[in-house]
Amino acid sequence: MDSQPDYKRKELNLDDYVDGIKQNNRAMLARAITLVESNATKHFSLAQDVVTQIMPLTGKSIRIGITGVPGAGKSTFIEALGTMLCEQGHKVAVLAVDPSSSLSHGSILGDKTRMERLSRHPSAYVRPSPAGGTLGGVARKTRETLLLCEAAGYDVIIVETVGVGQSEIAVRSMVDCFLLLMLTGAGDELQGMKKGIMEMVDIMLINKADGKNKQAADQAKVELSRILHMIPPVTEGWETMVQTVSALHETGIDECWKTICAFRDHMKETHQFEKRRMQQATNWLYSLIEEQLLSRFYENNTVKKQLPLMRENVLSGQISATKAALTLIKDFENRNMKLQSEK
Amino acid sequence: MDSQPDYKRKELNLDDYVDGIKQNNRAMLARAITLVESNATKHFSLAQDVVTQIMPLTGKSIRIGITGVPGAGKSTFIEALGTMLCEQGHKVAVLAVDPSSSLSHGSILGDKTRMERLSRHPSAYVRPSPAGGTLGGVARKTRETLLLCEAAGYDVIIVETVGVGQSEIAVRSMVDCFLLLMLTGAGDELQGMKKGIMEMVDIMLINKADGKNKQAADQAKVELSRILHMIPPVTEGWETMVQTVSALHETGIDECWKTICAFRDHMKETHQFEKRRMQQATNWLYSLIEEQLLSRFYENNTVKKQLPLMRENVLSGQISATKAALTLIKDFENRNMKLQSEK
Repeated sequence: MDSQPDYKRKELNLDDYVDGIKQNNRAMLARAITLVESNATKHFSLAQDVVTQIMPLTGKSIRIGITGVPGAGKSTFIEALGTMLCEQGHKVAVLAVDPSSSLSHGSILGDKTRMERLSRHPSAYVRPSPAGGTLGGVARKTRETLLLCEAAGYDVIIVETVGVGQSEIAVRSMVDCFLLLMLTGAGDELQGMKKGIMEMVDIMLINKADGKNKQAADQAKVELSRILHMIPPVTEGWETMVQTVSALHETGIDECWKTICAFRDHMKETHQFEKRRMQQATNWLYSLIEEQLLSRFYENNTVKKQLPLMRENVLSGQISATKAALTLIKDFENRNMKLQSEK
Repeated sequence: MDSQPDYKRKELNLDDYVDGIKQNNRAMLARAITLVESNATKHFSLAQDVVTQIMPLTGKSIRIGITGVPGAGKSTFIEALGTMLCEQGHKVAVLAVDPSSSLSHGSILGDKTRMERLSRHPSAYVRPSPAGGTLGGVARKTRETLLLCEAAGYDVIIVETVGVGQSEIAVRSMVDCFLLLMLTGAGDELQGMKKGIMEMVDIMLINKADGKNKQAADQAKVELSRILHMIPPVTEGWETMVQTVSALHETGIDECWKTICAFRDHMKETHQFEKRRMQQATNWLYSLIEEQLLSRFYENNTVKKQLPLMRENVLSGQISATKAALTLIKDFENRNMKLQSEK
């Protein structure tokens, strides 16, 4: 027992984290992710050093995003796909972006028993969504967790999201391949098919294509394929695919993986794979800059004092909103300079 | 001729603008809007002084937003509603938010002939969307134009938008009452009904309820009302209304105006009217601050030089994106301080 380092107690340094991840130590990976997810200032710098150190080891996985309305069967599908891949020798990490998740670890993936079989597999790592905070914060943490998992040798990363608002856009911006899981209901309606989603996903899966639902699913697939044939594809030269699956009966899972691989191959052959990743990394840098600029302003003491007063003046019609905004920014900048010169 | 000031040539000062607007001079209003829409730095400060000066005169109109897919008949509807109101003694201004509009004055309202009859009415003022720029910039300009129109005595302000992306959210954030104009097609589908829109609009109008379309429109109204009855309303105590209209045959226009008035009365009685406007003004202040903070950063010379290099380092895996973002921000802040101390 004593020969194994007790990572749960010891205060870890940069090398501990980096070496642990390199050695594919699950406990260390978990602690590194906790570090990255920490909101404490004292953890921030160390977390960024860890991420910078492991950067050269990242990038070698296929990153798959999965969205779909609650009830579409995402957990069951991910469990079926993930378990199959683990058994084929892959190492699978399952992450999530769910800004609605509370401190108690949220609405998706919070309950590990939802993917009990996959969680227990030695080649799988299932992590709930970072809790609380803004979407930007949650997305940053998931993105850095994705890098840590890649460095720890996971070669398939699945990022799940609930199909609400901006979180789908956040996940689309960190994955190579984006899947939509849908259901077909009575009257051939597709549940989970939102406006705008067609322009976002590479593969559409109609789930619960089993029993008396099978025929409706097959028919929906035909109709959907016809529609998709008429609109411009997300990825050049790749017409968005529609497939039917039954996550529960585990049919169509293998075909789905083959499609993902065909998609990846197409992306690599046409040099779109690297291009998309570069674009994503660039966009990420911009969104980090923007979040930081805003939080520095709003957390500044002068701003905290002035903003409520200035807001009152705008509301009472004493100053235009634009003028108020500029005055606040000038005060903020001057205060920063004064502070600096006092140092 | 000489007794009338020639506003087209003279370089105007603050008083010229403010007095002109107060006297409800259309040519002056037009020039003040052009000033507010100007991207030139030299116009900015004067524009803000004009807006600040006229602030006490604003707020007395009903602000109506209208959205709908292209082809839903927005122009025809606005012309019918606007002309009716002008004939009842109202003064109607029609503005637009269309960030896709080009320098040639865009896709909506660019062609004044689309509202020819209304444009010619002495009590109406029809203005195309500010051209080019970001959605934030376009929205700011439209919002300040709305204030100028109110100060010039327009008591009904209609803000049109195309039903795309964030522009609907921008318009929702500047109006009291938001209308969706829809069509009903074959198979009872509602065209223009996007996910999320139900949570945004106060009144839904099914247009082209005429001829052989009348029955389908009436049926769609019944069905839609049933759905709306089941979801929580946008405005407390106000169940989103559905009505049928024919903009072309000008039927249902009067009923629509009565509904808008009933909505306004409900909002005022329940003190939600003022509350919503206060909230909107507050949110606007925040969005102006955020836009300014970002443009100051990106237009800074140090940042312009450093950002491409830092991006390369992120892309080549030499630094984490988070660390790169923070380094850039620190350099930006230090440079600002150095500049200040050199003054």
